[in-house]
Amino acid sequence: MAKESKCSCSVLLCCTEYETSRTLIVRNKTVGVTNRLIQAIIIGYVIGYVCVVQKAYQDTDSVISSVTTKVKGFAKTNSSDLGLRVWDTADYIIPPQEENSFFVLTNMIVTPNQMQTRCPEVRAADALRIQTGKCVDYSDAVKTCEVFAWCPLEKDTDLPEPAMLTDAETFTVLIKNNIRFPKFHFSKRNILPDVTSSYLKSCTFHRITDPHCPIFQLKDIVSEADEDFQDLAIRGGVIGILINWDCDLDLSHKKCIPKYSFSRLDNKNPENSAAPGFNFRFAKYFSVDGVETRTLVKAYGIRFDVIVFGKVNAVSDWVLLTFTSKRHFYSQQKSTYLDEMDDTSEVGLCLVHFLLPWIPVIVSHVRSQKS
Amino acid sequence: MAKESKCSCSVLLCCTEYETSRTLIVRNKTVGVTNRLIQAIIIGYVIGYVCVVQKAYQDTDSVISSVTTKVKGFAKTNSSDLGLRVWDTADYIIPPQEENSFFVLTNMIVTPNQMQTRCPEVRAADALRIQTGKCVDYSDAVKTCEVFAWCPLEKDTDLPEPAMLTDAETFTVLIKNNIRFPKFHFSKRNILPDVTSSYLKSCTFHRITDPHCPIFQLKDIVSEADEDFQDLAIRGGVIGILINWDCDLDLSHKKCIPKYSFSRLDNKNPENSAAPGFNFRFAKYFSVDGVETRTLVKAYGIRFDVIVFGKVNAVSDWVLLTFTSKRHFYSQQKSTYLDEMDDTSEVGLCLVHFLLPWIPVIVSHVRSQKS
Amino acid sequence: MAKESKCSCSVLLCCTEYETSRTLIVRNKTVGVTNRLIQAIIIGYVIGYVCVVQKAYQDTDSVISSVTTKVKGFAKTNSSDLGLRVWDTADYIIPPQEENSFFVLTNMIVTPNQMQTRCPEVRAADALRIQTGKCVDYSDAVKTCEVFAWCPLEKDTDLPEPAMLTDAETFTVLIKNNIRFPKFHFSKRNILPDVTSSYLKSCTFHRITDPHCPIFQLKDIVSEADEDFQDLAIRGGVIGILINWDCDLDLSHKKCIPKYSFSRLDNKNPENSAAPGFNFRFAKYFSVDGVETRTLVKAYGIRFDVIVFGKVNAVSDWVLLTFTSKRHFYSQQKSTYLDEMDDTSEVGLCLVHFLLPWIPVIVSHVRSQKS
Repeated sequence: MAKESKCSCSVLLCCTEYETSRTLIVRNKTVGVTNRLIQAIIIGYVIGYVCVVQKAYQDTDSVISSVTTKVKGFAKTNSSDLGLRVWDTADYIIPPQEENSFFVLTNMIVTPNQMQTRCPEVRAADALRIQTGKCVDYSDAVKTCEVFAWCPLEKDTDLPEPAMLTDAETFTVLIKNNIRFPKFHFSKRNILPDVTSSYLKSCTFHRITDPHCPIFQLKDIVSEADEDFQDLAIRGGVIGILINWDCDLDLSHKKCIPKYSFSRLDNKNPENSAAPGFNFRFAKYFSVDGVETRTLVKAYGIRFDVIVFGKVNAVSDWVLLTFTSKRHFYSQQKSTYLDEMDDTSEVGLCLVHFLLPWIPVIVSHVRSQKS
Repeated sequence: MAKESKCSCSVLLCCTEYETSRTLIVRNKTVGVTNRLIQAIIIGYVIGYVCVVQKAYQDTDSVISSVTTKVKGFAKTNSSDLGLRVWDTADYIIPPQEENSFFVLTNMIVTPNQMQTRCPEVRAADALRIQTGKCVDYSDAVKTCEVFAWCPLEKDTDLPEPAMLTDAETFTVLIKNNIRFPKFHFSKRNILPDVTSSYLKSCTFHRITDPHCPIFQLKDIVSEADEDFQDLAIRGGVIGILINWDCDLDLSHKKCIPKYSFSRLDNKNPENSAAPGFNFRFAKYFSVDGVETRTLVKAYGIRFDVIVFGKVNAVSDWVLLTFTSKRHFYSQQKSTYLDEMDDTSEVGLCLVHFLLPWIPVIVSHVRSQKS
Repeated sequence: MAKESKCSCSVLLCCTEYETSRTLIVRNKTVGVTNRLIQAIIIGYVIGYVCVVQKAYQDTDSVISSVTTKVKGFAKTNSSDLGLRVWDTADYIIPPQEENSFFVLTNMIVTPNQMQTRCPEVRAADALRIQTGKCVDYSDAVKTCEVFAWCPLEKDTDLPEPAMLTDAETFTVLIKNNIRFPKFHFSKRNILPDVTSSYLKSCTFHRITDPHCPIFQLKDIVSEADEDFQDLAIRGGVIGILINWDCDLDLSHKKCIPKYSFSRLDNKNPENSAAPGFNFRFAKYFSVDGVETRTLVKAYGIRFDVIVFGKVNAVSDWVLLTFTSKRHFYSQQKSTYLDEMDDTSEVGLCLVHFLLPWIPVIVSHVRSQKS
């Protein structure tokens, strides 16, 4: 490498002279070939690994997502408490609308006609409720504390098995997911452009035959998550519907398609667990002869969490962008469904970018040739 | 560049001798100037691009956000089914509270007084419901299958046009957004410190005149998203309220202000779509003479998703921090509203950091001067 | 550094000869020691800072999280409006189920038996409601405009102090949080494997004595956030339950444990604020003699947002992975609770990786020895 001259005398001198090392040229096949081989490995590392595999010249952006879901289906139950009854979306989706999630009721313990009054505690040990201080007959054999509560109290020991809404496995859900990567002004939705409306009316997602259908049967989702629907329906659980949008925008935008996967998010049968499964309580309030009455429901069911994730990679370095043909990509507001573009020019530019620090070495080489 | 001596003899010798290349000094204006020019370009690249543009010495952190919303406004409807009726927040926000989202009811199909019984299917083809097996008169002309369901069935073909709650465009929403960047112990809210309480009582967001007012008229939000409110109100949709907190904490914290943008998140008029717009069904349950009755509502409306994103950049490299005056930044729990600080020292330190690998070159140069 | 020969003549020649600079060896203790010292600093920087402190060879992944919450507890109120009344989960959790959040009712203004009719406006100035155009007696002294509304109107001026559900501070919440880092196929939950079921039945989180118990008393959460529960309960607020999963998967997986922290997310007593605290309105609808009636509740309370964040770091560079013993880490679907592994080999490999660009220097050195 060239050495700079003693610049102490003047700035002018510093800029008009240069220094180069004196070299020896040695002819030796073994050392010469080894020398070039090592240089080839280094260049190969930069091209092959940094530029092609790691795509170190690309910038990434995280996804902004919007999810809407629509569950369809009817279930029939016939219990001694409720009699013959049908259940539709308004009955079994609780709450009726959530942002990235929906809960499907599959099993329940219903306690109808509760009123605010006094009644005997169900279990003697359950001392959390508000006690009146009296000791009363729970049954002929058992005496328990009297409590002030919504009476009669819920008996949550006898959970129906099989689950009440066994038909829930036939329900279908339409998931509409729109995503955008704001940094790259790129947006897309999970209903792909080549899918027709008539197809959407009849299709059901299947990993092999219908991988782009956005309508899923609940049973399929649960079995893709390696669970048995009827088993899960009894005590409930949380199932994740994962939509992965890992895209390389430098490739064709047509190749940017969502990948669905499903997995159980709560623990199935852990050795240590508090309140296994998934349940919550809600009440429907009535006014019976001016007295507030409620029907308490301990609702067991499956909460489906739609989790959208993914990262988009694309060239964003302005040095590279200046030279690429993709500048229009940034100038237009929404670039959707662009066609294939060649990747070769980009790898070339990556090289320029990463070889920049080597310029002094190259320059000194050129100079040494002249001297 | 200096070559290291043959260290094979002893470690002591290795540390007491050094090797330098023998150089030639050539006086030539063209080559000398070119030499210095190339060196200037490389230094300029490091200073200008790596340090100033890319701010490669900064660390980033993602936002943790909390959003609360409060919708205000009254609407009046006058339909043949419901008669004259007013709607307030408790009627049209469903569910009443969500974390980062709120739904405003704008249109609906109401089916009152449904009970669990038998009735003729509305459309002959709709075979999903639970059929009794009988074929009954739907009207004088049409016979359909009898179903066991919540009867009478919903007739979802005649959607009101214009939408029922046309007044919804006058509703306002107060959005309170608190953010924090835990890595930098930085927190801020969208109600900026220089905004007064009296201003908040009367202001409405306007991109030009009131860009910091956190109260938005629904019509303005929808029109900023390039949609027509009354058009959108008929079938519903999803509107994103995007709050962007991209901040550079090395600049003044006063400059860290949220940028609002609005866009429709579902597809407006796609060629291929299942269930366009946004709607869901919910029911209000009553007890009429001991028989469970419900009012089914197919609710069309606008779901507003408040999406908070952004990254904060700040110096975090401990090498740099040791030398900067911003060490107190980490020692205090909450740094809010700090004043302007100079950026010059940081760029200088970035240089030190990035020029570190060049030290051998510089050192060998210095030594070559001596020899 | 070696200079490449003039390759213009032929490729063959280019590969069989090499060029090296002619060097001088100078024996001088001061310069020799300085030389080695500088080299030691640079190598120390790479090993100590880049490899050990920054762990630049590691890849990161963001968390995918699932949260379920279950609040338990009973409250008793005794007000002139409602009389003696107990409140259970179904009464005070609104809505009954949310994804990452739960709202606990602590205070309220109840307006029972509202019907759609005409009544005098409460405040003369409140002109947002739908006015009939008449001026009527609000009281003996005051005349206000008549409005068409849910009547009687809510009087939201007299908020109960202390809050109605003072008992809410004794409520407990079980938080179950399952996380996964999809890139590394790593999943874990906040109920740690060494926690027993019997412990879970009786424990309550305490930062010092019970840091791994997933059951939290609401009062403790609020006081950890530096707030007074009874004070907060009056006007409501938003409390963040932050679960931090910053893990280094190259260390023992047992060390990957969640850190809980709590903080108030809305502003406590800001100088400028619109609608301080947290409240919303909802209604319970009844049918009284065929006339729709509702009980309007202005609900004040605490919204607890469970915010899960964290990044996992682990070796992911395939070059490094090829050489590490952790390849099985990627081949198995779920790696949970792996035991301690040594970190030494990784730092060694980091060195290889980061010293790769130095190979030309080392090679030229070796060659210069030979010549």
